[in-house]
Amino acid sequence: MTEAFDAVDVIVTKRDGGRLSAEQIDWVVDAYTRGVVADEQMSSLAMAILQRGMDRAEIARWTKAMIATGERLDYSGLDRPTADKHSTGGVGDKITLPLAPLVAACGVAVPQLSGRGLGHTGGTLDKLESIPGWRASLTNDQMYAQLRSVGAVICAAGTGLAPADKKLYALRDVTGTVEAIPLIASSIMSKKIAEGTGVLVLDVKVGSGAFMKDIDMARELARTMVELGADAGVVTSALLTDMSTPLGRAVGNGLEVTESVEVLAGGGPADVVELTIMLAREMLAGAGVTDVDPAEALADGRAMDAWRRMISAQGGDPDAVMPVAPHIEEVRAEADGVITRMDAMGVGVAAWRLGAGRARKEDPVQASAGVFLHKTLGETVRKGDVIMTLNTETPERFARAKQALVDACGGTGAVEIASSGAARGPIVLDRIGTAT
Amino acid sequence: MTEAFDAVDVIVTKRDGGRLSAEQIDWVVDAYTRGVVADEQMSSLAMAILQRGMDRAEIARWTKAMIATGERLDYSGLDRPTADKHSTGGVGDKITLPLAPLVAACGVAVPQLSGRGLGHTGGTLDKLESIPGWRASLTNDQMYAQLRSVGAVICAAGTGLAPADKKLYALRDVTGTVEAIPLIASSIMSKKIAEGTGVLVLDVKVGSGAFMKDIDMARELARTMVELGADAGVVTSALLTDMSTPLGRAVGNGLEVTESVEVLAGGGPADVVELTIMLAREMLAGAGVTDVDPAEALADGRAMDAWRRMISAQGGDPDAVMPVAPHIEEVRAEADGVITRMDAMGVGVAAWRLGAGRARKEDPVQASAGVFLHKTLGETVRKGDVIMTLNTETPERFARAKQALVDACGGTGAVEIASSGAARGPIVLDRIGTAT
Repeated sequence: MTEAFDAVDVIVTKRDGGRLSAEQIDWVVDAYTRGVVADEQMSSLAMAILQRGMDRAEIARWTKAMIATGERLDYSGLDRPTADKHSTGGVGDKITLPLAPLVAACGVAVPQLSGRGLGHTGGTLDKLESIPGWRASLTNDQMYAQLRSVGAVICAAGTGLAPADKKLYALRDVTGTVEAIPLIASSIMSKKIAEGTGVLVLDVKVGSGAFMKDIDMARELARTMVELGADAGVVTSALLTDMSTPLGRAVGNGLEVTESVEVLAGGGPADVVELTIMLAREMLAGAGVTDVDPAEALADGRAMDAWRRMISAQGGDPDAVMPVAPHIEEVRAEADGVITRMDAMGVGVAAWRLGAGRARKEDPVQASAGVFLHKTLGETVRKGDVIMTLNTETPERFARAKQALVDACGGTGAVEIASSGAARGPIVLDRIGTAT
Repeated sequence: MTEAFDAVDVIVTKRDGGRLSAEQIDWVVDAYTRGVVADEQMSSLAMAILQRGMDRAEIARWTKAMIATGERLDYSGLDRPTADKHSTGGVGDKITLPLAPLVAACGVAVPQLSGRGLGHTGGTLDKLESIPGWRASLTNDQMYAQLRSVGAVICAAGTGLAPADKKLYALRDVTGTVEAIPLIASSIMSKKIAEGTGVLVLDVKVGSGAFMKDIDMARELARTMVELGADAGVVTSALLTDMSTPLGRAVGNGLEVTESVEVLAGGGPADVVELTIMLAREMLAGAGVTDVDPAEALADGRAMDAWRRMISAQGGDPDAVMPVAPHIEEVRAEADGVITRMDAMGVGVAAWRLGAGRARKEDPVQASAGVFLHKTLGETVRKGDVIMTLNTETPERFARAKQALVDACGGTGAVEIASSGAARGPIVLDRIGTAT
């Protein structure tokens, strides 16, 4: 078969700072998926893209080309609008769990395709798999049926959506080319656009525990994704939210399910409740639903009802108690004062090392492992108070987990106690959207 | 086996504009040769190096690391100093053929490891293989013995020298990362330093027919290589020479052997004679031999004697007549005037397409194919005069060869005839060295 382009010509164009044509992009993405463009050619191109960037038209075309390598779902036949949320990943970020049933309870269907965690931020599927019996894998037909009956589904993305992205993401992971904004944006958006949602709200995390440490980079990523969504006809907006400290008190799979159920029951940590309601409002507004208050749907139990139906529909027991770790160690305050720092990265890495996360795709995760924060940012402690408990099924992990807390923040430690200091700042730092 | 570094960390360091440490460089070059660093990781690193550059210490270490992956030859036991020349490749550049025996005749041994051609510039081994019986492959012991007995040897580099370079060069060729000066310089110099020569003269070509079109880029490459040689204890200098027009009148394997023998016999084109003598003087000066005039050694037949011994020692017949192409077409002047342009790239591509060069490593070359310039730059022609003959064993190649002459210089053609215009400019454009 004669190929329309030569891979080296495409690489050289971008290497030297040129624009890739629509035809070059369509070809290189498709040819890579077919195996005609080799891994070593695509990684060199990815590095050139990282160094030289892509303009809005190039990124939109690249995204479209990735979508075109697979199937595209369609929910236009549903009796309700659809809305989805994507988070770039944070420590203690269990928001999807209360959010999806809450939005469903407000009359907007949520078709959420999620992933598993890699590194120090957990994955939504890992958390839900702490619930006995719960199944992450659904067929497209099952997903559609559940959206009709329950209004919310959280499940694993099938292999049919944007296979080019799956292949490219694995390649970027081992070639130092993850951090290219055009490639991050097109990777996220190709899956979300192929997923078929009508509204998309992006939760772009900023801070020590986030992929984006810097608000300007986060803003550029958010703007790029909002433009991509708009170009594809998806109503898209982004909230830039703080990830310098963990969300809530629970970091770890089963621990986060428990905290999510507390939020659905009308309790739970204030920051988790606040962010859940803000994101729900954003999703509902995008879908044109402005006469329903998600705070009420959370308070009166409608969101909890939807949660129970959603979990049951996928084989899970909504009344199951989360497993308790057989090994627990406590971290205590070394002085009286106020907690002026609870570093997201330090806590995230500690939870990861305790068994809540995985180092490689094929590793298992522990349902009960993680960190629970009895005291967090802005709270008063007395010397000897328990600040956090470390939970694991494998006690040999304690030493390295505690080391992560010591090594955090350039060796100054994940926790700081002072006589006085700032409380938690605002959670939502900025909003980027095509409409308000 | 535990590895000292992670490939992604090394890539990210260079990607973000940092310096690679000596330990990182040693590891990544060795691990790539061992297959621990994958092709897709090395190509991403090569692209980062292309974009971000390397400083003098990094390039020197990279070169040293590539040499360390293989064997290193040693001629310190010879009774004479050693000197070698490397050309970055030009059209009609047969200089090595008369130069090596000329320098040997002046008392300095020439241990030249050469390559085959790829693309529009020919390879020295391809040219010599036009001579019936001549063998390119010698063992290290045969090479050493021939240096003692004849004083000059031109043969194929064995697989033992810098195997990392061989693997990396093949990778760069398909990943758009050939044009990185640190990688070009370290590729050339790793082989030349491992080859064991005491003196190295670089002929860095500049102009349309050269890899470097731009004199500033050529100067940077030359300076980088001269520094690398100096750092490794090799007396190194570089001449920047003009490659806007072919060297001499013959372009093609057997045609260039014939022209080289004419030079050795005291005739031949003035530019070939001039550059041969300039390079010989540079090599002799580097070796400390200042009391021998290479022009005399060429005129009195000593160089020709050395040539005949050199060819015979490798099984070749020095009296063989070069094969004549069975198919010849003529290109005639379309007007009276002076030839004001004879474009090196256009002629080089025409010769390549006639069969003098190869598109892929495994392709054969034709001994008799090529272009002979009856008239060249600065010479007067009458309308209808034969300017050049095109030679090939496969006449279906004429059409594309002639097209190369038409397409040259942005479609204005390889040959330009005007009522008056500039003759050939100076051949040597600049000299870069650590000593004069």
